[in-house]
Amino acid sequence: MKKINAGIIGANGYTGLELMNILARHPLARVNTLVSVSNAGAHVCDMYPSLTTYRGRVFDALDTDAAAKANDVIFSCLPHSASAELCAEFVKRGVRVIDLSADFRYRDIDVYEKTYKVSHPAKEIAQTAVYGLPEIYRESIKTASVVGNPGCYTTCSILPVYPLIKERAVSADDIIIDAKSGTSGAGKKAETPGLFAEVNESFKAYAVAAHRHTSEIEEQLSIAHGDKVSLSFTPHLLPITRGILSTIYLKPSANIGRDDIHDIYSKYYGGEPFVVVEKNALPAINWVKHSNYIRIGFVLDKRVNRLIIISCLDNLIKGASGQAVQNMNIMFGIDETAGLTVQAEYL
Amino acid sequence: MKKINAGIIGANGYTGLELMNILARHPLARVNTLVSVSNAGAHVCDMYPSLTTYRGRVFDALDTDAAAKANDVIFSCLPHSASAELCAEFVKRGVRVIDLSADFRYRDIDVYEKTYKVSHPAKEIAQTAVYGLPEIYRESIKTASVVGNPGCYTTCSILPVYPLIKERAVSADDIIIDAKSGTSGAGKKAETPGLFAEVNESFKAYAVAAHRHTSEIEEQLSIAHGDKVSLSFTPHLLPITRGILSTIYLKPSANIGRDDIHDIYSKYYGGEPFVVVEKNALPAINWVKHSNYIRIGFVLDKRVNRLIIISCLDNLIKGASGQAVQNMNIMFGIDETAGLTVQAEYL
Amino acid sequence: MKKINAGIIGANGYTGLELMNILARHPLARVNTLVSVSNAGAHVCDMYPSLTTYRGRVFDALDTDAAAKANDVIFSCLPHSASAELCAEFVKRGVRVIDLSADFRYRDIDVYEKTYKVSHPAKEIAQTAVYGLPEIYRESIKTASVVGNPGCYTTCSILPVYPLIKERAVSADDIIIDAKSGTSGAGKKAETPGLFAEVNESFKAYAVAAHRHTSEIEEQLSIAHGDKVSLSFTPHLLPITRGILSTIYLKPSANIGRDDIHDIYSKYYGGEPFVVVEKNALPAINWVKHSNYIRIGFVLDKRVNRLIIISCLDNLIKGASGQAVQNMNIMFGIDETAGLTVQAEYL
Amino acid sequence: MKKINAGIIGANGYTGLELMNILARHPLARVNTLVSVSNAGAHVCDMYPSLTTYRGRVFDALDTDAAAKANDVIFSCLPHSASAELCAEFVKRGVRVIDLSADFRYRDIDVYEKTYKVSHPAKEIAQTAVYGLPEIYRESIKTASVVGNPGCYTTCSILPVYPLIKERAVSADDIIIDAKSGTSGAGKKAETPGLFAEVNESFKAYAVAAHRHTSEIEEQLSIAHGDKVSLSFTPHLLPITRGILSTIYLKPSANIGRDDIHDIYSKYYGGEPFVVVEKNALPAINWVKHSNYIRIGFVLDKRVNRLIIISCLDNLIKGASGQAVQNMNIMFGIDETAGLTVQAEYL
Repeated sequence: MKKINAGIIGANGYTGLELMNILARHPLARVNTLVSVSNAGAHVCDMYPSLTTYRGRVFDALDTDAAAKANDVIFSCLPHSASAELCAEFVKRGVRVIDLSADFRYRDIDVYEKTYKVSHPAKEIAQTAVYGLPEIYRESIKTASVVGNPGCYTTCSILPVYPLIKERAVSADDIIIDAKSGTSGAGKKAETPGLFAEVNESFKAYAVAAHRHTSEIEEQLSIAHGDKVSLSFTPHLLPITRGILSTIYLKPSANIGRDDIHDIYSKYYGGEPFVVVEKNALPAINWVKHSNYIRIGFVLDKRVNRLIIISCLDNLIKGASGQAVQNMNIMFGIDETAGLTVQAEYL
Repeated sequence: MKKINAGIIGANGYTGLELMNILARHPLARVNTLVSVSNAGAHVCDMYPSLTTYRGRVFDALDTDAAAKANDVIFSCLPHSASAELCAEFVKRGVRVIDLSADFRYRDIDVYEKTYKVSHPAKEIAQTAVYGLPEIYRESIKTASVVGNPGCYTTCSILPVYPLIKERAVSADDIIIDAKSGTSGAGKKAETPGLFAEVNESFKAYAVAAHRHTSEIEEQLSIAHGDKVSLSFTPHLLPITRGILSTIYLKPSANIGRDDIHDIYSKYYGGEPFVVVEKNALPAINWVKHSNYIRIGFVLDKRVNRLIIISCLDNLIKGASGQAVQNMNIMFGIDETAGLTVQAEYL
Repeated sequence: MKKINAGIIGANGYTGLELMNILARHPLARVNTLVSVSNAGAHVCDMYPSLTTYRGRVFDALDTDAAAKANDVIFSCLPHSASAELCAEFVKRGVRVIDLSADFRYRDIDVYEKTYKVSHPAKEIAQTAVYGLPEIYRESIKTASVVGNPGCYTTCSILPVYPLIKERAVSADDIIIDAKSGTSGAGKKAETPGLFAEVNESFKAYAVAAHRHTSEIEEQLSIAHGDKVSLSFTPHLLPITRGILSTIYLKPSANIGRDDIHDIYSKYYGGEPFVVVEKNALPAINWVKHSNYIRIGFVLDKRVNRLIIISCLDNLIKGASGQAVQNMNIMFGIDETAGLTVQAEYL
Repeated sequence: MKKINAGIIGANGYTGLELMNILARHPLARVNTLVSVSNAGAHVCDMYPSLTTYRGRVFDALDTDAAAKANDVIFSCLPHSASAELCAEFVKRGVRVIDLSADFRYRDIDVYEKTYKVSHPAKEIAQTAVYGLPEIYRESIKTASVVGNPGCYTTCSILPVYPLIKERAVSADDIIIDAKSGTSGAGKKAETPGLFAEVNESFKAYAVAAHRHTSEIEEQLSIAHGDKVSLSFTPHLLPITRGILSTIYLKPSANIGRDDIHDIYSKYYGGEPFVVVEKNALPAINWVKHSNYIRIGFVLDKRVNRLIIISCLDNLIKGASGQAVQNMNIMFGIDETAGLTVQAEYL
């Protein structure tokens, strides 16, 4: 079978690292281009010695024309705004794009511009982009020119709540998402608050009532609801490298029972290869680390009439690069799980 | 000034360790008795080499009469039920008791018995016990025979919420406490789920909608409210040794503003030596580690009409042994901060 | 191609976990038997929810006859002595055995018995066993009935030193191995010193001048030397889950230069799929985590005439279960890297 | 008693943090000046919220004259070279100086200049400086104008070896120091290799055969020996915040026994308040964390004729700020343990 030729722009960051790792074991993809503007010419293995299959390979400088010619798909790991600008160039050249920034995640560009405090550099293309959550938008992803790959917090928030909102099983105006993430979500930028001694043996909330992923989650849940949804989203920083766990508090609708919730999840996710809904357990981060799974468990607390959902995933895999490859697989009509079949690493 | 003679029963556990450490630097206390039933005769420093001031000292066997004669106050670090049984012996012999178990924390013994699934072994004494939260019960603590020292999760939950409930600043029937604790809260028992490899690089919720501290928190907030309060309490296990951080979601009453909340906290805690309410910040665990402080910050999110409170403390100090010594200081009429003036350790 | 039928005895421990994980992605192996005496009947996924491919599978009780019939090879993850006793049963029934305990690692059974303070329960079989270091004993492994799979510390010690001793590039009577291991090497036994709070934020040496792996290392290096080698081996406990790094101090022979050492390593390991000798760098544990690689770097310090070698590997993979599968591949004449091609996880 | 007025230059780093913390509990010191050039005007508690006793205090700009007038002693936490330049200004103004950089640690300025690749900016003063190891240079420290406060690795290396070299109990030409340090030793500079995700779950050696502390250790041991000593020093980075543990390999002289070594340590350190030599144990980092102790244990391995010493200390306390305060106490003739009596924190 013909291989998919793939290029990664911004390959030197942590999502780039994971893309390189996943694509190296992908049976039907070939990494043709590895752009790092700041590290062009440097050996991949000098930065990431773990990537033994890339021995001898150097990061490429950015050459848009060459990259467009050489690749069927471009993964962009650039920061927002810069990403859309470059992605537009690839789209114009007929190359399909999977963008890991926020630039193509919003249906309402105004909300994007308010949230990120920038003017969108590629509005028209943005309007044709598809939100890269396979479990919800698989059909549109198949033919999309541009996929806006969801954020880590958003995937971990939307997937457990979307079906319940859509099916009116829970109230749409009483949603609290208390999310906890490992530090790799903050990327590789050298800043004092990211130092080991600052993060280790501590824990904190940040961007409370002000995190940018809130509007992305709200837009998707509003689509499910058919009307505007607002919610509380509180991110926290865990002293671990990978993983997100979200504790979600919802108000169940009258007469909704445990089985109803299981039925709804079965209806939406029964056939999904990367969604596990727990029967009688609540997932932990070491159930998903290094894998493309999202796992969802819940407790229906009749005493106080709350539905408490625990969802977790690996922020770098299902929350970023794994999901991006899942999208690629869908876009190119191959087995959706190709390259993504590794089990989680419990230890 | 005459020293307070203090005995510790169950000194070999982590709360015992911290009591030994605090009392060693206490200017007006002397540790006369260090009972460990399972380790009687063993050297304190063989178990805890850090306790250099205890060099040569061995753990005592339990001799209730001798301990009663030798001490003005007994700290009990025994498990619940066993603790009340022994504490009763000391009370009968006229020794004041600070119990770190749950046995003397409940005003309603039925709730205790349902929660802990035991028959209370010292009901009469329990009815005279005072709940050891100095910020709320200081006056009663002064003359108490028995103080039921609050749990770590409970202190971190009750102190930030109590004044707001009492002053009708928030709704009493929409309270969510999402709590995250380090592993030392689980004590020193050797069990597989507590192993380093099981806890490290992971994170999980546990006892969801079923944790025993829920009823203790509810009882105190019900007292504040004047009527029954029910709430959601969700504990999580952090891969750190010490510290608790709680994210608390409340519904503010109409017209309640940021300043109102600050005013209420000032009224209740303005003079408190160990409560810090943040002006414009949210506390993190490394702001309180190794200290007796509880720190409280909040965000009033008008957009979704939620008050989000972040509270944190060291589970072994303000959440256990530090608070116990604070109670001792109050009971014996000395400076409440004696032995407890160490600053937090940021690193 | 016909699949290799494999059974794991003692599957519930950490090396069992890793074997299950590796074999699940092995293209030519099928896990037929999963014995856990203490957890027979329990669901694999209740203990290790990460093992999603084992959904529905339960741990088997021990039935030696059935296991012998159903499998071409048995991996034994039992404790020493118990392991040899059971392995002998399989050998008698004509099943090939890879034993992860120490029971079949020693050529000199007396040394084994002195080291482990037991009488060897299967001396005759032990005399036919092959030491499972493929880089040294590949030819004998091919036809072995029983392979004694080396320990984690030993693999990390022997591979970097063996060629240098054999080629007389370093002195054989001045060898210091300062080794540091993650906690998973101690297994899953619930003991207080293994608790998170005891290990976290600390570091210690243990079994100094008394660790059992010393005699295993010495025996192999003595074979290389042609005469008795004695050495200092000092293990330390790292507050991490996986990985070993050894710092090895040797006295270079006269006139030995950097290139000579590279030449020797090339001669011995140039074609090895899982040995990487660094050109100009020293490896770290995140260069090998989750992979079957051992990586070796060195500095020749002319100033003090020392050769300092840094070697590292994942104690559960190349130090245990990965090496065991590598041995299986050799024994059954298939591609030696089958199931073992995953790159290391840098994060 | 009159208080000692103390100023800290470079107070915003981690050693400054610890100095502020120790001096806050010092009964006879008052912190008059807190210079941070980069953070002048910023609130101390905005950077280090744990320093509750500094509430309201801001970092001062550098005003050498004012600082000289206001203080009896200056602690300099500046980088090498910049430190000596400024310290010289204080010395000229008659203020006593404790310098935490390397600038005043060397007796042989040439070695300093080669090691640090700079020209020393204050050579004459450097020649009068005293090396701030109280256990060796207490008498000279009493009257010193300038104390060169030793580094963390050096204190942990010199104290255990110095007496043995001096007493000819071990060979002076076969010394290996394998040292492991927490990350706080690298300070607060924002650099990618210091990020949590890069350090966590890994371990590595660095600056092998090239670390700058080597020449400092060698100079002191050469003084003990009376002749030039060269040694191997290998530092490693532990994924913990605080603490150093060194494993030291020495060749014992003929007929030296365990008791001889104990006798030598007793002779040198029997009366030392901050040196603990273990009778029958090897110290771990959680035996010293947050305290000013160095703890030393050893094994005499007759089998291979090696003496293996384990020493450990808190790199920020006995390895930096605690030792600096100990020096201050000696210089001003007060109780040497003032401010330094806290026990280690086991958890």
